[in-house]
Amino acid sequence: MVCKKGDTMDRLSPFTQPSTQHFLHRFPAPFDPAQFPPPVSVQVHDVDASKALEERVELTARERRPLMAGEVRVGMLAMTINPADLLQLDGRYGVRPKLPYVPGHEGVGVVLQTADDVPDLSPGHLVLSNGRWSDELVVGHRHLERIDDAADVLQSAMLRANPPTAWLLLKHIVSLPAGGCVVQNAANSAVGQCVRQLAALGGVRVINIVRRADAVDARTLGDEHWIVDEGMDAPTLSAQVKRLAGQHPRPLAIDAIGGEATGKLAACVDDGGTVVVYGLMSGAPAAVDLHELVFRDVRVRGFWLARWFSDPVQLGQVKAAYTELVALMKAGTLRIDIEAIYPLASVHEALAHAARPGRTGKVLLTGAWFDRLLQAPRENPDN
Amino acid sequence: MVCKKGDTMDRLSPFTQPSTQHFLHRFPAPFDPAQFPPPVSVQVHDVDASKALEERVELTARERRPLMAGEVRVGMLAMTINPADLLQLDGRYGVRPKLPYVPGHEGVGVVLQTADDVPDLSPGHLVLSNGRWSDELVVGHRHLERIDDAADVLQSAMLRANPPTAWLLLKHIVSLPAGGCVVQNAANSAVGQCVRQLAALGGVRVINIVRRADAVDARTLGDEHWIVDEGMDAPTLSAQVKRLAGQHPRPLAIDAIGGEATGKLAACVDDGGTVVVYGLMSGAPAAVDLHELVFRDVRVRGFWLARWFSDPVQLGQVKAAYTELVALMKAGTLRIDIEAIYPLASVHEALAHAARPGRTGKVLLTGAWFDRLLQAPRENPDN
Repeated sequence: MVCKKGDTMDRLSPFTQPSTQHFLHRFPAPFDPAQFPPPVSVQVHDVDASKALEERVELTARERRPLMAGEVRVGMLAMTINPADLLQLDGRYGVRPKLPYVPGHEGVGVVLQTADDVPDLSPGHLVLSNGRWSDELVVGHRHLERIDDAADVLQSAMLRANPPTAWLLLKHIVSLPAGGCVVQNAANSAVGQCVRQLAALGGVRVINIVRRADAVDARTLGDEHWIVDEGMDAPTLSAQVKRLAGQHPRPLAIDAIGGEATGKLAACVDDGGTVVVYGLMSGAPAAVDLHELVFRDVRVRGFWLARWFSDPVQLGQVKAAYTELVALMKAGTLRIDIEAIYPLASVHEALAHAARPGRTGKVLLTGAWFDRLLQAPRENPDN
Repeated sequence: MVCKKGDTMDRLSPFTQPSTQHFLHRFPAPFDPAQFPPPVSVQVHDVDASKALEERVELTARERRPLMAGEVRVGMLAMTINPADLLQLDGRYGVRPKLPYVPGHEGVGVVLQTADDVPDLSPGHLVLSNGRWSDELVVGHRHLERIDDAADVLQSAMLRANPPTAWLLLKHIVSLPAGGCVVQNAANSAVGQCVRQLAALGGVRVINIVRRADAVDARTLGDEHWIVDEGMDAPTLSAQVKRLAGQHPRPLAIDAIGGEATGKLAACVDDGGTVVVYGLMSGAPAAVDLHELVFRDVRVRGFWLARWFSDPVQLGQVKAAYTELVALMKAGTLRIDIEAIYPLASVHEALAHAARPGRTGKVLLTGAWFDRLLQAPRENPDN
């Protein structure tokens, strides 16, 4: 099953708002491996970007192994394809796993089976995992985070990376004063969408910069404003930002692009302001006019969620963020656009789609358990 | 009188180590203006860099005016030509004075005359001033800083900008851990020389990057090391820096150049390290690989002494720095190389010299009082 934008939401709407019963009752427990074919995983065995993806990325079926102490077997429902995954496939990410590796960083699944000593998790529970692109994963229970069984499955698959990135960018890079204004480019990226929604909730004015008029969102989520930058120079962009910001201070700009875009944002913040780069869309070195750095005291830094996870102090901020983000997603206040959904078997097509310019939503992969549960008869006729 | 490197120090050595008596006795007090021709000032009346300097910068004689309350008449001895002055002449500095203006930012003079209500200053005292390129200045007494009459006159002329810049760069950008290592380019610039000397005093390892083998200083001031970068790429430079730094942490790099040089220094600091840009030698935007920013959390910021002066909190740090720097200069522990000395009348030649690539010392201007005092008979034969 391949779903594309437009039909996706309609066809999947009963599933994207599942109740607990959907999962607790839709699959056979206790889990009997003999009933299901071996799970399939995506494997990367080469990161030489000069070769075609088809030569580097393949699908491999694996035998199931018995669980060991503390482990959980998870049937994967949905996994994201993020820019970080695409960079890693080309060997250009901050982490280069040993080859071969199973790619993927975030996803949601259903608990199929647990070792006897695993507390708090039972078959049927929804869990966030490391999101490796597989039909099934065997994971230590400490690496799983149970989420509300009534959570939106597809939205939850996108919870782990982009929403906390947006959250931390907005709240932990600079201390935003009351009435602060944030400037961001790539405003319709997944992080950009989350920044817009979180800023709207927090009463922060946002100035969104996009490269095409058709990328401007018709909805206005909060106190937000748009600039279509089809190649204007830094002074022109800065003048537009200042006009839209009015009297609101501009201590922070959020950059997904790099290259000249970083320098343009540097021209848009106040003296002493910060440009934080979290994305590598241009691949080009951040180019910042020395006058911005020296005479206006503008600061440039980066943000990488993996680093925040690796620091015990910052991890506390991430954990606090998740609690609120799950609640916002469940309430429907925080949503990320989905452009298309592909089953694992179509991973090459999915990757090509994810790399396509002009996307306006996330590309998701689904594991075998997505269709199995979707098609399973509901055992409780009341739901 | 034009002094060039080599002969300068010998010819001037009796004067660069003056005693109090040199000044208190060498000029006629009370000051009688009728004895001296009107003072001359350099004036800038155009900052259009496409025009020759001779068309934009001229010498103008002015009538002396009587002092008003709180004012002091200063006979200028020596003034620096700094890169900031050259940028400002071309309209490319962070401050653009209203035209016409008298350029210059630092210099040393001797008090000629004070208004009746000026405390603590008397004719013959050595003072630091705003360093405008003039034979004489009339300045409010609050804007003058008296320094030890036994200070080295020429060195004192260079005290106001570069030594405190080096001081603040080393001590107030990051918190340097014990055993920290600092990397700097343009290591033979005036700030670079001060960084080397202050680092040597503080036990900080310094790795100096220069562009030509003949720019390596034969002296080793402390725990310092040199790299001649004749165009190596960032990974090569970074590998050399790591080898020379050994186990010493590298949280700070100091950049006078911008452009690709900033990115190269970004590759040389530790994860989470800072590159601070204080100079604009290349004029090109700082170009920093996104991997350094995002995956290694390297931060890039600027430093401008004028900004620190304008912030009351930071001004405290500057004042504290001066006290120590004056003492170090007097002790001969802190010295800046002088390449040439020109009288104000040769300002065009001096500016051309200051803009010449490959300089290894400062170009100074002298006011009329430099020669007058040098040639005056010493009234106290004991000195």
